[in-house]
Order: sequence, then C-alpha cells, then structure tokens
Amino acid sequence: MAKTVRPRKPKSLEGLDPGPAIILVHPQLGENIGAAARAMLNCGLGELRLVRPKNGWPSEYAIKAATGAVSVIEAAAVFETTAEATADLGIVYAATARRRDMTKTVLTPRAAAASIRQQVVAENRIGILFGPERTGLHNDDISFAEAIIEAPLNPAFASLNLGQAVLLVAYEWLLSGVGEAAIAIETPLPNTRRANRAEMAGLFDHLESELDDCGFLLPVEKRPSMVRSLRNLFQRAGLTEQEVRTLRGVIAGLTAWHKGTKRER
Amino acid sequence: MAKTVRPRKPKSLEGLDPGPAIILVHPQLGENIGAAARAMLNCGLGELRLVRPKNGWPSEYAIKAATGAVSVIEAAAVFETTAEATADLGIVYAATARRRDMTKTVLTPRAAAASIRQQVVAENRIGILFGPERTGLHNDDISFAEAIIEAPLNPAFASLNLGQAVLLVAYEWLLSGVGEAAIAIETPLPNTRRANRAEMAGLFDHLESELDDCGFLLPVEKRPSMVRSLRNLFQRAGLTEQEVRTLRGVIAGLTAWHKGTKRER
Repeated sequence: MAKTVRPRKPKSLEGLDPGPAIILVHPQLGENIGAAARAMLNCGLGELRLVRPKNGWPSEYAIKAATGAVSVIEAAAVFETTAEATADLGIVYAATARRRDMTKTVLTPRAAAASIRQQVVAENRIGILFGPERTGLHNDDISFAEAIIEAPLNPAFASLNLGQAVLLVAYEWLLSGVGEAAIAIETPLPNTRRANRAEMAGLFDHLESELDDCGFLLPVEKRPSMVRSLRNLFQRAGLTEQEVRTLRGVIAGLTAWHKGTKRER
Repeated sequence: MAKTVRPRKPKSLEGLDPGPAIILVHPQLGENIGAAARAMLNCGLGELRLVRPKNGWPSEYAIKAATGAVSVIEAAAVFETTAEATADLGIVYAATARRRDMTKTVLTPRAAAASIRQQVVAENRIGILFGPERTGLHNDDISFAEAIIEAPLNPAFASLNLGQAVLLVAYEWLLSGVGEAAIAIETPLPNTRRANRAEMAGLFDHLESELDDCGFLLPVEKRPSMVRSLRNLFQRAGLTEQEVRTLRGVIAGLTAWHKGTKRER
C-alpha cells in the first residue's frame, strides 16, 4: 500500500456538503491532474485520489495547472492500485465512454449526481473513477464499479479531456445540491433600487408630453397603441430609479434646443 | 472590418440543431481557444467567432489543443471589435462573473440554454460572449448583452478557465435539446449499508480461489474474462454487507462436501 495521506479538507470547501472522491487512475499529464483539481474545487469537491500517476508524484505541472486549487493537489492521496484506492468506498462509479460488451447501468452525469446525493445522505462513501487520458479506464477497473457515467455528447465527437470530464461530473454534483430556483432562474440584482411605479409614471408623462408637443404621437387615434408600445419597452427593461433620472435628463437634453433651455458650454 | 470568413458547418455537426455562436473576446492563449473549440464540438456547436486574439491568428497552439475539433478552428471568423462580431445577432449573452454594478438579468447556464432553445426556434440568431482569460469581459462588452450567464459554482473558488467556461455553457445547450429520459435515469437504491470494496474483494477472492480449486476457471487463458464477468455480475447487484456475508456462507456451504467441513444436521 502506497502513501495514503488522509485528505484534509481545504478551507475553501467550508460550508459545502461532503461529496464523492474523484479517483484518477494512471493519469498521464500533470496539467490534467491540475485541471481536474481546479474543476473539483470549482464545484465544491476536495477529495482527490490518484492511482500511480504515470509521470510520478508530486508534479510541478499539476501544481501549476491547479492555480487556485493547489490545496486539492496537496491533499491528494496516492495509491498503488485501484483496489486500494477504493477499499473504503461503498459505491464506485466509472466515468468512461460506454463499453458495449459490459452489462452495467449507464448514467448521465446528471442522473449519477442525483443518485450520489441520495446515497451520500445514507452515509455511503462514494468514489468516481476516471481513466488515463489516452486509453480510458481498463475493463478490470470498470468491473469495480456499480455503474458507468457517460455524458451524452455529440456522437460524432464525444472525446473529452480529463479535466473537462471531471468538470462535467463535478458540476452536475454541485447543481444536484442546490434548489431548482438556483438552477432555473435569473437573480434579482441588489445594489440599486428598481424604479417604483410613480417614478415610471413620471418618466412616461414626461416623455409622452414631449412627444405630444413635437407631433410624434399623431394621428390621435394611433396614440394609445404607440404609448403602450413605448411603455412596454421601458417597463421590460426593469429600470432602476437612477436610470429613470438619467432618461429624464436625456429627454430634457433632447428638447432643450426647441425649448430654448439649452445650456451654453 | 476584419477577415470575416463565413463559417462552414463542420461535418461532425450533421444532424444537430444549429446553436448559438461562441464569441471569444480578446482570447490570450491559443491553447484555450483550442480547448474551447473542442468543448464546442463535444456539445454540437460549430460557430466560433474571435475578436482580435491577443497572440494573432491563425494559431498553432489552438490547432494543437483542438485535437479532433480542428474543423471548428478552421471555420472560425475573426473580427476587430465586439460590435462587428455581434452585428448580425439578434440576442447576445455575456458569460462572466457577475458585475454587482450592472443591472442585468443573471442566468445560470441551464436557464440560459432553455431560453436560447426557445429563441432559436423563433429563428433568432444568438451569440454568447466570453472574455479574455485574465480580466474577463469588459463592461463595454457586457453592455452589448441582454443577460449575463454565470455558473453557480463554489463561491470560495468560482474562477473557471476559458475552455471550462465554454464547456459548461455548451453542455447545458446540448442537454437542453435532449429529452428528460436521456438526462435522468433509473437507479435502484438499497436501504442497508452497501458492502465496501474490501468486503467485495474478500468475496471475490473467496469465490475465485474456490473456483480455481475446482477447475471452473479453466482453461487458464479464459480465466481473466470469466473472472471479470463474475465480478461484474455481483457488482451490478449492489450487494449489502449482509448479502456479502450470506454469499460467503453459500460458497463455504457449497464447498463443504469436498473439504470435509460439512456439518451434520
């Protein structure tokens, strides 16, 4: 059994749910290990396990590529075999392009994430295997897994690099833990206050009276629908009170020539 | 106006819906442009636009990093300004970390994808802006966009590299076009604790040594595939630790005659 440092939890994971371990089997390039670590931390995962990295360990390339996620690299545990790397795990998934000759459940990353969530709640320890860059996971490693995770990509070009594959799986893990609201919708923006109805009405009055003056809203039978269109347009913009003031300044500026209120510079 | 080759559709996109254009504004590293192209093709997107790449164009690094997605690189259109790159588009999104000082709708990649699907159906032409690696999109570029796309990542470490950012957005685009069935899937969940890897390995060792003894695993050249099939079979069952103990009892029982350990009743 190789060096099996128990991973300590990187500080930047505080407050996040414990997630599955990411297990890279015989990864080749340090850059890819670094990219995987970064993707993990982006998505709130901190436990990286390596099975005999091909170019040795520790890896300067991995540290460089991890940029802000060096903590994940430093906490990585290294094992000699996949069996050792998964010994303490209750459930193991294999992320790989599907092997047609295997009778295994195949899950998308999204379905796998939902399933992992439930199993984590039941206090199962979970790991996800990723294979070497060129060859992918060996059938012997896949046979350790209960299910295969395969992203439903463009069938004509489905090959992901290692960092990208880890990102997709980790991202779905992260999203599986947030409510529908956080996934599905716009966030209302704090900081500035939306214009209230009275301020909007003030803007419309100002604009429409100027447009009446210059004849833009003629003929009169078309006025109601023209006014409605303009109001809809500004309403849709979700203006702040500052923006309403700005727009009223614009209207005043544009009409200054005609009104003789133009300021000399 | 710079070179504006009209992108031709790469062959490996045949049969896929036309999707949004990916617009990289002042990308710095060819590697990242290549990674973005690869992520695009993985997810069925083919239209790449570049606004003044910092290290010139064409880029050997981009071609190398694109590996199987060179067709996307070759079809990329290059523009001098974001205004020119978006001139023919009806709807533009800005992928960026949120600017607190801007009053724009913020969508997750998933919400944006759903929205883009609808708009594509209405024959709108859509583009998604991504900023330079170090600084992200400039406020002037963001002001071109109707909405911001921001992935809901680990708040303590939300910085994605360019290729990863394009992947998440493109992946959600792809998934938004496939049915629920392709995204979500089955998984039977047992209630008791799953056997861990060590317990499963104990079961396999026990079974396989008995099968070796009785000659079941002959001829020797077939042994690896027979062992794999057996392991897959038990693995697929999602055994609990109790079931593993039961199975080991079964093996012991079945071999008791031959071993002379059979208990009299």
